[in-house]
Amino acid sequence: MMDKLSILKDIAIIIISAKVFGLLARRLKAPQVVGEIVAGLLLGPSLFNIIGSSNTSDFISGMAEIGVVLLMFSAGLETSIPQLKKTGAKATLIACAGVFIPMLLGTILYMCFYGFSKPGTDKFFHAIFIGTILTATSVSITVQALKELGKIKDELGTTILSAAIIDDVIGILVLTIVTSFKDPSNVVSDVILRTIAFFILAFVVGFIIFKILKWLDTKYPHTQRIPIIGLALALALSYIADKYFGIADITGAYVAGIILSSLDDSAYIDRKMDVNSYMIFGPIFFASIGLQTNMRELDLTILVFSIGFVLVGLLSKIFGCGIASMLCGYKGRDALKVGVGMMTRGEVALIVSKKGLEAGMLESKYFTSVILLIVVSSVLTPILLKILYSKDAKTDVQ
Amino acid sequence: MMDKLSILKDIAIIIISAKVFGLLARRLKAPQVVGEIVAGLLLGPSLFNIIGSSNTSDFISGMAEIGVVLLMFSAGLETSIPQLKKTGAKATLIACAGVFIPMLLGTILYMCFYGFSKPGTDKFFHAIFIGTILTATSVSITVQALKELGKIKDELGTTILSAAIIDDVIGILVLTIVTSFKDPSNVVSDVILRTIAFFILAFVVGFIIFKILKWLDTKYPHTQRIPIIGLALALALSYIADKYFGIADITGAYVAGIILSSLDDSAYIDRKMDVNSYMIFGPIFFASIGLQTNMRELDLTILVFSIGFVLVGLLSKIFGCGIASMLCGYKGRDALKVGVGMMTRGEVALIVSKKGLEAGMLESKYFTSVILLIVVSSVLTPILLKILYSKDAKTDVQ
Repeated sequence: MMDKLSILKDIAIIIISAKVFGLLARRLKAPQVVGEIVAGLLLGPSLFNIIGSSNTSDFISGMAEIGVVLLMFSAGLETSIPQLKKTGAKATLIACAGVFIPMLLGTILYMCFYGFSKPGTDKFFHAIFIGTILTATSVSITVQALKELGKIKDELGTTILSAAIIDDVIGILVLTIVTSFKDPSNVVSDVILRTIAFFILAFVVGFIIFKILKWLDTKYPHTQRIPIIGLALALALSYIADKYFGIADITGAYVAGIILSSLDDSAYIDRKMDVNSYMIFGPIFFASIGLQTNMRELDLTILVFSIGFVLVGLLSKIFGCGIASMLCGYKGRDALKVGVGMMTRGEVALIVSKKGLEAGMLESKYFTSVILLIVVSSVLTPILLKILYSKDAKTDVQ
Repeated sequence: MMDKLSILKDIAIIIISAKVFGLLARRLKAPQVVGEIVAGLLLGPSLFNIIGSSNTSDFISGMAEIGVVLLMFSAGLETSIPQLKKTGAKATLIACAGVFIPMLLGTILYMCFYGFSKPGTDKFFHAIFIGTILTATSVSITVQALKELGKIKDELGTTILSAAIIDDVIGILVLTIVTSFKDPSNVVSDVILRTIAFFILAFVVGFIIFKILKWLDTKYPHTQRIPIIGLALALALSYIADKYFGIADITGAYVAGIILSSLDDSAYIDRKMDVNSYMIFGPIFFASIGLQTNMRELDLTILVFSIGFVLVGLLSKIFGCGIASMLCGYKGRDALKVGVGMMTRGEVALIVSKKGLEAGMLESKYFTSVILLIVVSSVLTPILLKILYSKDAKTDVQ
């Protein structure tokens, strides 16, 4: 009983605070998500500690999980497949740069702090793992920011989204390879095969559902069953990706969205997802990022390391992806947009860190650094993107 | 991690099964909710046992709780205050009959099974508690059925809803009085004062929010903030009702809906609630009723008692509320509709049972009887209401 009641209270507080701070952020010319994360920071252990008692934190994180699935599904639905085809090669190059440069610089950062060590030692693996955490881009904040700016459907938006999805896949491969140093049950070729197998399965299942929905679309357009089947596909592919193929669940949701993006009713499905998303699940997801952070836990040593970690985390993606974008033909400011769009970290970085903890390759104190990187990148990315795009508008006017 | 993943799977299975069985039920001329409950029965421990492992059952029941709040809020939003005023006196009489006749007959049923006992003995209190469980009408199934029939806004629908709300308040009073026999900290006059205090608080807070929303409605009509503030009010009043006043939380959600029902944008708020409700929370709530039932746990003794309990539970409401309705001037079939509409039991009966268990006034084996009553009444009510209303249509045609 008590639990269920506290859920009602916590959700009421989260949705109201997220909306108030979201509107406040918008008034300060920052995107709404920033306000929603700040609302989470204020409500969480960093300041007022109102939300996220042990009674409800599991529930809140479950809702946040559904929120991120809805968000990625919606991003997939808004993807244009012709544009994805067009940006595929560029996106792959950007993703590779966005994985290996942060990984290299992260490893070097750890070694600068704690001394260089020979390959094969525990310390060496710890260093490499710090690099590994920096690989996975979390595109959800960028998605929301680009959506608010109305730029998600254009070529640059699609490039960023495609690169982030490919980055995710490569990042998971790297994670599996790195952890397989410790656990001999993971074989690299297996991981690659599993990833390919998932995409084949996803597109076979997705194609069948697509055909069913296309038929329903003609026979019963705009009925409740269409978005419900779509949502179930997104949830199912997320589950299957993670459970049976070891790929991040959000990849499944995004793929589900891409598959259904060429339906006549894709905009209809997207509108229904959007209502669910902005009313309850979205604010809970973004606030939960702030909620997970406890600013009070930071001591001086980890604070200094964290500052380095955040700087390396942000700059390595900006330079890595930015330079790769320039190689792909994007000009200065557009290359910067790609770098900034790719620098956000989120739940994937947390999942990677958790796996590192379980594998004995990461100490728990670095968790704070990861959360700090998530918060800083989540707050900075939308603001920087907005500034970069508004400069475009000014240039266009001149 | 594992937990969160299973949530995605369970929700995918629930929303798809609920939709499929809901559509099947509609094809069989039964309302969709019946199909959704049957889906829950099939997925739960009674048959396939696919859903509701210990990993996710807390999450599912939390989602179901939000679902019932959304449903009651929506019912409140669709209430017409002028009609509520008109039906207030009738509804009070019907509610009183619907509390005291089931309570009396439930007590007699227990005594028929286990022997008559003197007032003041433990056995006597056990008998009275069985009667108490039968008092609380759960209107959510009826709401859904009346909504599907398009009859929720007319005079009879409002009478049923008003009677159910008043029934709930009287039922909680009765529960508090009955349990106070065991626990001297509960004083009847306190309970009545608390209830009055809640309604005063709810209408004061509600009036302020109403004024804010009325202003927002003029300044920013049809913006996201309007349904979000509405939902937050519903969640907050639900929490406050239960936590600080000991009144069922759904009463708070319903009151929130009634307060906002005369807003210009009330239909807009309702539409947004409806999307959240039919996509995710509604199917989970109705399926969870089936999920909570384990048909396999029934042995012969408790089965025979349960059959008696279900029959008395249904008939006492039909006769009690039906006769009271006739006294209020409703004719035969309309009086029957009120009785049938009032006979559903739901989460309130479960909450009452749980409180009885905690107070030592109910043995856990009777839980199965309560769940059976919930399932049977939830399945029968929509079917009977549909039949009763379709006979009206035929009579109208003649």
